[in-house]
Amino acid sequence: MSDRLQSNADTGIPDAAGNGLMDRRLLLKSGIVFGATAWLPAASANPKPEGTPAAGFARPKWMREPGREFSAYGLPARFEQEVARFAAPNRVMRNNGTSWTPLHLLEGTITPGGLHFERHHNGVPDIDPGAHMLLIHGLVDRALTFNVADLLRYPLRSTTCFIECGGNSNAGWNRVPSQSQAGYFHGLVSNSEWTGIPLGVLLQEAGVKRAAKWVIAEGADAFAMHVSIPLEKLMDDGLLALYQNGERLRPENGYPLRLVLPGWEGVVNVKWLRRLELTDQPAMARNETARYTDLQADGSARQFSFVMEAKSLITSPSSGMVLKGGPGLYQVTGLAWSGRGRIKKVEVSADAGRTWAEAALQEPILPRAFTRFRIPWRWSGAAAVLKSRAIDETGYVQPERNALIAQRGRHGFYHYNGIVNWSVDEQGNLGHVYDEVAAERSGTPAIDADWD
Amino acid sequence: MSDRLQSNADTGIPDAAGNGLMDRRLLLKSGIVFGATAWLPAASANPKPEGTPAAGFARPKWMREPGREFSAYGLPARFEQEVARFAAPNRVMRNNGTSWTPLHLLEGTITPGGLHFERHHNGVPDIDPGAHMLLIHGLVDRALTFNVADLLRYPLRSTTCFIECGGNSNAGWNRVPSQSQAGYFHGLVSNSEWTGIPLGVLLQEAGVKRAAKWVIAEGADAFAMHVSIPLEKLMDDGLLALYQNGERLRPENGYPLRLVLPGWEGVVNVKWLRRLELTDQPAMARNETARYTDLQADGSARQFSFVMEAKSLITSPSSGMVLKGGPGLYQVTGLAWSGRGRIKKVEVSADAGRTWAEAALQEPILPRAFTRFRIPWRWSGAAAVLKSRAIDETGYVQPERNALIAQRGRHGFYHYNGIVNWSVDEQGNLGHVYDEVAAERSGTPAIDADWD
Repeated sequence: MSDRLQSNADTGIPDAAGNGLMDRRLLLKSGIVFGATAWLPAASANPKPEGTPAAGFARPKWMREPGREFSAYGLPARFEQEVARFAAPNRVMRNNGTSWTPLHLLEGTITPGGLHFERHHNGVPDIDPGAHMLLIHGLVDRALTFNVADLLRYPLRSTTCFIECGGNSNAGWNRVPSQSQAGYFHGLVSNSEWTGIPLGVLLQEAGVKRAAKWVIAEGADAFAMHVSIPLEKLMDDGLLALYQNGERLRPENGYPLRLVLPGWEGVVNVKWLRRLELTDQPAMARNETARYTDLQADGSARQFSFVMEAKSLITSPSSGMVLKGGPGLYQVTGLAWSGRGRIKKVEVSADAGRTWAEAALQEPILPRAFTRFRIPWRWSGAAAVLKSRAIDETGYVQPERNALIAQRGRHGFYHYNGIVNWSVDEQGNLGHVYDEVAAERSGTPAIDADWD
Repeated sequence: MSDRLQSNADTGIPDAAGNGLMDRRLLLKSGIVFGATAWLPAASANPKPEGTPAAGFARPKWMREPGREFSAYGLPARFEQEVARFAAPNRVMRNNGTSWTPLHLLEGTITPGGLHFERHHNGVPDIDPGAHMLLIHGLVDRALTFNVADLLRYPLRSTTCFIECGGNSNAGWNRVPSQSQAGYFHGLVSNSEWTGIPLGVLLQEAGVKRAAKWVIAEGADAFAMHVSIPLEKLMDDGLLALYQNGERLRPENGYPLRLVLPGWEGVVNVKWLRRLELTDQPAMARNETARYTDLQADGSARQFSFVMEAKSLITSPSSGMVLKGGPGLYQVTGLAWSGRGRIKKVEVSADAGRTWAEAALQEPILPRAFTRFRIPWRWSGAAAVLKSRAIDETGYVQPERNALIAQRGRHGFYHYNGIVNWSVDEQGNLGHVYDEVAAERSGTPAIDADWD
């Protein structure tokens, strides 16, 4: 293998950063570098005689018997059953809690509907769309009700965006680094193409009174989940979503109606929406006072901190994985997103942040949506620490964990977006470390408190 | 309702084309026009007292009992079971045939994995990815085999593109217009985010000999489905796909490996890929000689006609639907796509092609991918014919059916991309008509021959 790695040095393109991070352009000009020899460790040179069919390349059993028939609605292969959401229900109330998207097992940017993260307060209601109603009332010229059939006549708009739970990655606040896999630590975020009615259309139809500043949005679940949202956001880009990734919403994602507020914390993207009440002040509901606020060092709380700031995560290789091929070339890939707009740049370090290289970003780069980044890495076989940091179009730079704690204190539960460190040991095992405890490992679960 | 329609005339923006097609900018400035009154026919003015909870807006039963718990992998709501693929198996061999994507029931641009169209020749093989191998051989410096674990180490690339069966919409060649629903007539096309390895990487690793011009691609199904592909296309933008819409391929879409050749007819996007043999000439396989060629008027055949030309389809309202609300405002929406690149423009007519208006296109507009178009329409209550035509970035204009037949003759089975006419009668019922038989209706099935 060593001669193959040496051959890679012949590209004439210098490394982009320390400890083997290669120039992202090598991904685009792959024929030059990744061809012929560089990636050969992953393939077995296995000469065969020419001709059809290939001599010695026997037909497997599934070519010797007819396959199964057509299906009305397809499902993943039976060999992929571990690609599933990981649920962490409340110990007492099992329909309250969260389930994580397995980000470390996915690729591209779209989250399939069946794997979108879940956050339920009293389970998933079984709503008959024929009986579901939406009421718009309060500080409006006239209250309006809509059934789903009514709404399907309105002009629709599609937007691809992430939804991230305000509590995603909260194990990052822990004193000991969680060893959960990447998706079960940071996977309360998913990315979909949402299609629905711009809320401004419906609100103007009801006639917004001048005194209206807030909207109380209520879901039709048994928790009657409700929160307060500034009217301006709903008028700006709020969507009453009916479709997700082309098909009608899934029950656990709000069927038949949910609010989608691009870039804002998950809890305000109210599922199973039944009521929008325009008011002159927020409701001060449980989920915007006792929960979904950030307790600061001085004992006060950051409240109504809606926007999810820029964040990134290396999904592969990541905690719990092993670099099975030994030293050699690997692709480092992950996701970046920002509630403020487009991702402008993602930088990756393989030497614990001493040097950084710019990763390639998958086009198209959409505002408030997952952006896939990739960069080639030549692992030497020595211990290493991989990091990524996102920079968005506002110039905001994803902070190091220590900087985040210095700013916010240690009592936070929500809005954690610190840079993540994946350690690589000499055997190629990946784990999660903090800057100050790079050698320390722990089996702490990702969540140290019930979500209630 | 009539006063509401009149109020719409107060926008000061003239109609964009005859018979009520409105300016697409009204969708973007929706607050101006769609608010307050214009869309009120769809809502019931239903004044309620202010306050929380709304008096008289009773909590439904699903708010009075806990909902169900978390699920590892989600599924559509039980109320959406009719949103399914429609299978048309061969009468003798039920695992050979096609199944259609219900395009008329979907929105946005992504086709969910479970609803991607299917074309199988001998069923869906149940492939163990641990035992599956890919062989690259023939005119190469050295034959190579790869297992799936090998391939997962390679650098990946994502591309969102449509795949369309070369035989999609072939009922358009029939003398009597099919009355199937839009998806069961034109739904052998779907759009996904595919992620995989650029094929150029693997081919260069094997070392392409100068004499190589073609690649024979073979699938691991019981039909050993194989076709010939110009080497140049594989090197250009061919993808060895491993992931579809974020997760690993579905079995019916080629798990664990398929070729994706953006913009080219479905049959060359070989599923369950097991073998790529580089040759100096095509194999002249059954599916590129007896099938997937277009018989022309003079008895010769268009062969290796890979690119799917620009096409569009109004998905709603469409054949079989009813404009239930009576005369008034409706959204006309559909999909456009081109195997040659980006869609530049979609025009819609409500008067059988006498006048055309430009529809709004959903951003981002990606090359060789579904592009959603939308335009508001004020239906007067009189009979009408709705049409759409796509124009791509090469300047190609989707042809009228008569022009297509004049060019290709009447013996075609593949590559039908004529403009579709949806008729609207005075009761709001939609049907499918040809220009020359606008009054004629028929119950002809979409497919008049078995796919074998």
